[in-house]
Amino acid sequence: MEQSEIDLALDQVRAALEAGKIDAAIAALATLHPADRAEAFADLPRDDQNEILPRLNTEATADLLEELEDEEAAEVAAHLSPETLADVLDEMDPDDAADVLGDLSPAQAASALAQMEDAAEVIPLLAHADDTAGGLMTSEFFALRRQMTTQMAIDFLRHQHPATETPYYLYVVDRFNVLIGIVGLRDLIAADPQATIESIMKRDVTAVVVGTDQEEVARLMSHYDLAAIPVVDAEGKLVGVINYDDIVDVMEEEATEDMYRLANLPGDEETFGSVFGSVKRRLPWLIINLGTAFLAAWVVSLFENTIAKVAVLAALQSIVAGQSGNSATQTLTVIVRGVALGEVELKDAWRAMLREAGLGILNGAAIGLIVGLGAWIWRGRPALGFIIAAAMIGDMIAGGIAGALVPLTLKAFKLDPALASAVIVTTVTDCVGFGLFLGLATLFLPYLQ
Amino acid sequence: MEQSEIDLALDQVRAALEAGKIDAAIAALATLHPADRAEAFADLPRDDQNEILPRLNTEATADLLEELEDEEAAEVAAHLSPETLADVLDEMDPDDAADVLGDLSPAQAASALAQMEDAAEVIPLLAHADDTAGGLMTSEFFALRRQMTTQMAIDFLRHQHPATETPYYLYVVDRFNVLIGIVGLRDLIAADPQATIESIMKRDVTAVVVGTDQEEVARLMSHYDLAAIPVVDAEGKLVGVINYDDIVDVMEEEATEDMYRLANLPGDEETFGSVFGSVKRRLPWLIINLGTAFLAAWVVSLFENTIAKVAVLAALQSIVAGQSGNSATQTLTVIVRGVALGEVELKDAWRAMLREAGLGILNGAAIGLIVGLGAWIWRGRPALGFIIAAAMIGDMIAGGIAGALVPLTLKAFKLDPALASAVIVTTVTDCVGFGLFLGLATLFLPYLQ
Repeated sequence: MEQSEIDLALDQVRAALEAGKIDAAIAALATLHPADRAEAFADLPRDDQNEILPRLNTEATADLLEELEDEEAAEVAAHLSPETLADVLDEMDPDDAADVLGDLSPAQAASALAQMEDAAEVIPLLAHADDTAGGLMTSEFFALRRQMTTQMAIDFLRHQHPATETPYYLYVVDRFNVLIGIVGLRDLIAADPQATIESIMKRDVTAVVVGTDQEEVARLMSHYDLAAIPVVDAEGKLVGVINYDDIVDVMEEEATEDMYRLANLPGDEETFGSVFGSVKRRLPWLIINLGTAFLAAWVVSLFENTIAKVAVLAALQSIVAGQSGNSATQTLTVIVRGVALGEVELKDAWRAMLREAGLGILNGAAIGLIVGLGAWIWRGRPALGFIIAAAMIGDMIAGGIAGALVPLTLKAFKLDPALASAVIVTTVTDCVGFGLFLGLATLFLPYLQ
Repeated sequence: MEQSEIDLALDQVRAALEAGKIDAAIAALATLHPADRAEAFADLPRDDQNEILPRLNTEATADLLEELEDEEAAEVAAHLSPETLADVLDEMDPDDAADVLGDLSPAQAASALAQMEDAAEVIPLLAHADDTAGGLMTSEFFALRRQMTTQMAIDFLRHQHPATETPYYLYVVDRFNVLIGIVGLRDLIAADPQATIESIMKRDVTAVVVGTDQEEVARLMSHYDLAAIPVVDAEGKLVGVINYDDIVDVMEEEATEDMYRLANLPGDEETFGSVFGSVKRRLPWLIINLGTAFLAAWVVSLFENTIAKVAVLAALQSIVAGQSGNSATQTLTVIVRGVALGEVELKDAWRAMLREAGLGILNGAAIGLIVGLGAWIWRGRPALGFIIAAAMIGDMIAGGIAGALVPLTLKAFKLDPALASAVIVTTVTDCVGFGLFLGLATLFLPYLQ
């Protein structure tokens, strides 16, 4: 559907709602793709949502909950009666239903589960953390037995209730339900109808266990170009399947989280959430930064006597700290992203640090030369130029080492390499930069006055 | 395959190479998944690569080129004779073959194309820019006619040479090759064998035209949860298909590019590329930053007389500029990511700016209060506290506005919102912060001494 068609339908929905014609609004919404419908619904004021919601049938409500963001879906679900909610959850994909149940209050979730028909499919999924393979998987998948013929498998597929999530692969299990092979849908079609599944299946299956972190699942699926990956328990029994669309969401989520953390933001900031919510999320990080800013200010204050005599130092100190901070942030970003994409591992730590320190020397020398010449020409004092150039090289080396070492150390302690890295690294470049520059200036004060 | 198995195979490859047993090394490589094999190959020293390459058969070389990163694949391809290269390219998926040809010198590409059997499949793909739908698509797809029965379609599939890229959907075209519908592989299996394709196809197909930007293609596939998307020309004729695995790569690439640009890095930095290559890429950005740093230093230098009298101002000025810079970077990151994920559009610019300015007032007031009290207590001068608090609030508002306005302005001019945004925004917070703080200090100098 074209963007212009979507905008047109949205305008119709809004016009109908303003005229008080709820049925016309629902009809206009119904013309949209479920993904666009959910987006349009989420954009409506809460009052309009509450008018529309009770008039949607079970299937339309299930579609809506499947497509909405997790928090929005939970909020909508909380507005439904336990009976309606149970029907809607029965209609949904088990993994999406489990996500909604996980975000409800325990009492609401229990009362909905008690009235669900397919509760048995959903309950096992509730046991897993959202950000693990178990939390992402669906229990709706096709498992074949190795003795079946391909014709039997095709008939089996034909008579299954059509799943809403398309299966790309069929999995083969033994009598203990242990995963032993995989058959592509297309290979099934192409095979001799009398051939057994065992004869056409591929035995080398890439699978993950339920507790695998979602970032690792995404990395595997991306590395091996998989449209779906089977999930097994500790005994190798097939318990679920993760489809590529869930992984696309995970990849977006993880990239956003890393970006936000590099900018000292918590991972869950919403672009147009409440302003007070954003203050609550951002302020703590600004306060942590403030502590480190005072530390840097204290370093400067140690040299107040020097600054009082040569006030231009105050103008130039920020260049040293700022440039090194920029250079260190470049290093930090390359390392954090490299770790996320699986290109940098702990065994590379030493190599990465030496490389970035080397870059610091080269970039520091180049920038130091320019800044030194600039300062010399501006103020007519060669000593000022030498001091700022030396401080710049020293601080850039420190920044290169910190920019590589901090995220890799966090990784070694199994923490997110992006977490708080930026604060620590810029604190290093600020304190080293101010201290080196003003310290050298104090030492060579006679040549500056 | 487990990571430990991969590491084991890699150790075997290295040991075999050290002992000069090339055949044993190739045998060890062959036990790996093609994706891992390519990664292992890329990690080998160039000399070892050159010994192994001529001993691989056509299929193994094709696998290798498909899995290697674009630049690495082009380098390997450049080492092959035109005849070998032509055979290898014939064996590859047409879209991957086109990517390799696009990265070769025009002379090498022409001589390989002249000797290829499937050149006709690859040539149309060469016409499109790498970062468009046309550049991503493969010409290997299944197009059905509406009058076919499902049984005919299944027979047709069965007799096609098995494609290396799994088809998730089958596309239906009219006699002019115009795309008119889509059939899922599973629906094909489940349908009555005598039903026509027309009777089971879905008519509402989400498609993109060849020139669509890859970021938009990724957004559509992610939004509609598509495993593949058809590509049409200006007349609506089906010319190719993009599969989800290409989009996963695009998403990683675009997220990396945005992250890098926010850190003032060009998009193509490699973690362990040559050090001089990195200097060449990073240094220009550091020099641009330097220009803006001198601008900020010049603002400070306007107040040298004030600083000479109250040197502690030099220590505190960085707190104002630094905190506002951090706050503005938070805003910038949220807006840049929001634009990338399609959550923020141009029509939201005004709302986003007001929201971020409001956040600036609130965060500025909170941080200003703390800093003001801190400065007052540290130095026993209430005026110092008031001045720094006022400057902080003003600079945070400026930062909020710049953080939202700069990326959205770039977007309005159809430029990447992440491009150079960080430089501009921190220049604003530095200059406004230094100017406001030192300006107020100069105005109220009698109360500070």
